[in-house]
Amino acid sequence: MKKPTIVVLGAGYGGLMTVTRLQKQLGSNDAEIILVNKNDYHYETTWLHEASAGTLGPNDVRYDISSVIDSGRVRFIQDTALKVEPEAKKVLLEKTGDLPYDYLVIALGAAPETFGIEGLDKYAFSITNVNTARQIREHIEYQFATYKVDKKPERLRIVVGGAGFTGIEFLGELGNRVPELCKEYDVDIHMVKIICVEAAPTALPGFDPELVDYAMELLKRKNVEFRIGTAIKGATPEGIIVAKGEDDTEEIKAGTVVWAAGVRGNPIITESGFENMRGRIKVEPDLRAPGYSDIFVIGDCSLVINEEINRPYPPTAQIAMQQGELTASNLAKLLQGKSNLDTFTFDNKGTVCSLGDDDAIGVVFGKKVTGKRASFMKKMIDNRALYMIGGIPLTLKKGKFNLLK
Amino acid sequence: MKKPTIVVLGAGYGGLMTVTRLQKQLGSNDAEIILVNKNDYHYETTWLHEASAGTLGPNDVRYDISSVIDSGRVRFIQDTALKVEPEAKKVLLEKTGDLPYDYLVIALGAAPETFGIEGLDKYAFSITNVNTARQIREHIEYQFATYKVDKKPERLRIVVGGAGFTGIEFLGELGNRVPELCKEYDVDIHMVKIICVEAAPTALPGFDPELVDYAMELLKRKNVEFRIGTAIKGATPEGIIVAKGEDDTEEIKAGTVVWAAGVRGNPIITESGFENMRGRIKVEPDLRAPGYSDIFVIGDCSLVINEEINRPYPPTAQIAMQQGELTASNLAKLLQGKSNLDTFTFDNKGTVCSLGDDDAIGVVFGKKVTGKRASFMKKMIDNRALYMIGGIPLTLKKGKFNLLK
Repeated sequence: MKKPTIVVLGAGYGGLMTVTRLQKQLGSNDAEIILVNKNDYHYETTWLHEASAGTLGPNDVRYDISSVIDSGRVRFIQDTALKVEPEAKKVLLEKTGDLPYDYLVIALGAAPETFGIEGLDKYAFSITNVNTARQIREHIEYQFATYKVDKKPERLRIVVGGAGFTGIEFLGELGNRVPELCKEYDVDIHMVKIICVEAAPTALPGFDPELVDYAMELLKRKNVEFRIGTAIKGATPEGIIVAKGEDDTEEIKAGTVVWAAGVRGNPIITESGFENMRGRIKVEPDLRAPGYSDIFVIGDCSLVINEEINRPYPPTAQIAMQQGELTASNLAKLLQGKSNLDTFTFDNKGTVCSLGDDDAIGVVFGKKVTGKRASFMKKMIDNRALYMIGGIPLTLKKGKFNLLK
Repeated sequence: MKKPTIVVLGAGYGGLMTVTRLQKQLGSNDAEIILVNKNDYHYETTWLHEASAGTLGPNDVRYDISSVIDSGRVRFIQDTALKVEPEAKKVLLEKTGDLPYDYLVIALGAAPETFGIEGLDKYAFSITNVNTARQIREHIEYQFATYKVDKKPERLRIVVGGAGFTGIEFLGELGNRVPELCKEYDVDIHMVKIICVEAAPTALPGFDPELVDYAMELLKRKNVEFRIGTAIKGATPEGIIVAKGEDDTEEIKAGTVVWAAGVRGNPIITESGFENMRGRIKVEPDLRAPGYSDIFVIGDCSLVINEEINRPYPPTAQIAMQQGELTASNLAKLLQGKSNLDTFTFDNKGTVCSLGDDDAIGVVFGKKVTGKRASFMKKMIDNRALYMIGGIPLTLKKGKFNLLK
């Protein structure tokens, strides 16, 4: 009898967690495990704001997939998934063509969500992957270099759209990076303006107000100007248009606009005909797609409701990894012919939002933390993700050990 | 009696040579020496192609003026000269206003010459100073980073206009830099195209044909495509337009266009009403401006005829430094009331054109050299310029010591 084939799409937190657990839990005759990913590397989505600001290099935020998978147990295909055909039990890949599966894990991550705001997709950058992060870094450096030639002040203006988690973390890095850029490009730091525009009435909605105040005060000291409760109406080659009062608008000229205000699930979800909300499938308690006993959906493409507040959990690395772990053990059960799959419960260990390399805010095991302690916790969280997927060798190679900065 | 004032405009090779010799040769009561320069640093014009390609950092190609002048003897004014008023014996500076002089040395260097070719000033970069060099480096890096996002092949195409000295030296650096860029930005090197367009029937006109062949073969191996005998008709936001046959034109799409085909003297020369040829004043044998016994003109703003071939010497660091030396001693004579000024004779010690960090071609003391020997000579020439102006301390600090690469 032919071994069943498990196809895992995506080598993000969820996908790699699934695969690394599967290769441990399954015997070599239990199943063929195939991992499909666009790049031959995994990148730390939660570190991309650092690569975007230029405080970490692109190679610091990624590692080779081959370094964490057992090539004797897992077949890796570097390709882009275009469509899932659930009825035919196959995936269409860009180069390889059809890839049949017996069990599928969709772990394809997120895409930027611009909410139909005109020009954002064209004129704003987004912190999405290693390539876009590197582009943001290079764009900002090019603006600084060009300012020294044409003296246009808007080249030194950076707009960050969104004061959510990603926006605030990016601002924290920018606050540290700008003085370095000024030194490198002979620019007077007083000429540089960082403006954060947020439509909601507060930064970091859902965070403790005391922590939000701490973050905003710190970022203001790092030269960030906040425009809270201000909606972005559009982006142009020159900057952005924001709402002003009831009917009026105002232009903010800026050489760099980074949109950090929203993500949705991978477009392939809609493409493949799954019922979804902004590209996210509301999964069954055992993380399978409704109506498909052979498809698991985890990470940013999945939607799990937090019953306490009756709202979806925000997509994070933490939840994706826990989903990956559960999916691996549920797959093992299915292969053994068991049908009593475990259901998913999110074990929220806390959230820490960095404010640069040297400060942070967060709630960890129910306790509020700020400053160096929070920054230390953040780095431990980053290192934990490495450890969970790649063990001690990967942690030593890619971990953050400037813990007491 | 008031001390006479010597004003030196420009801290390039000629200006700094003049000032460092004056501060040694004159007693402190002989004259007030004032040096005016836009930046508080000197940059090595002959190394800018390296900073432009990114093979040297911007700080590697410059040093603080304060590190080579004796502040007790020379007053340094950081300002931009706008105009010389020879009849009123003063210089108009942008911030300081009028600066009177008794003796003036114009050593303001060159500006790019685009020969009226449409769009070049707007869409092409030029290797002119630290700021434009840094901009070129950042622009190329940004193109590589953006290629990974939008996949437009022209982002990886670099056109170099001109196969003269600067063009060829820049191509040599690019040839070495591109493999590094490909690694840094995950780009397939076969996607990168470097195209050199030269209107003249040969590269490096005036160089020995055997050496020209050596250079071209080497650069072709480094991925450079030559279009010799091809005139650039214009530059656009998308690339350049070149002549094709008698009446036709052809578009070459390129994300980066660097114009390296010509320089003229500083615009201030024309601005101030001096008779000139492309911004260069044909100086008297003692390097004074015709009709002005108190104005010396040296470096790229001066024009000295090579009697052997009845054509002007090309503007080089070597000739500028020799002119600076003579001007300092002639100024000393004038201050002593002597009128028998020495006349200038160019002592051509040779020319070496680098082809990257590891190869070069040249004629030194009348002998042809290529390869590692020529590259060694080139670095010795670069170090000699440092030594002549700043002595051993500057040479040790900024010199090129990877001599046997």
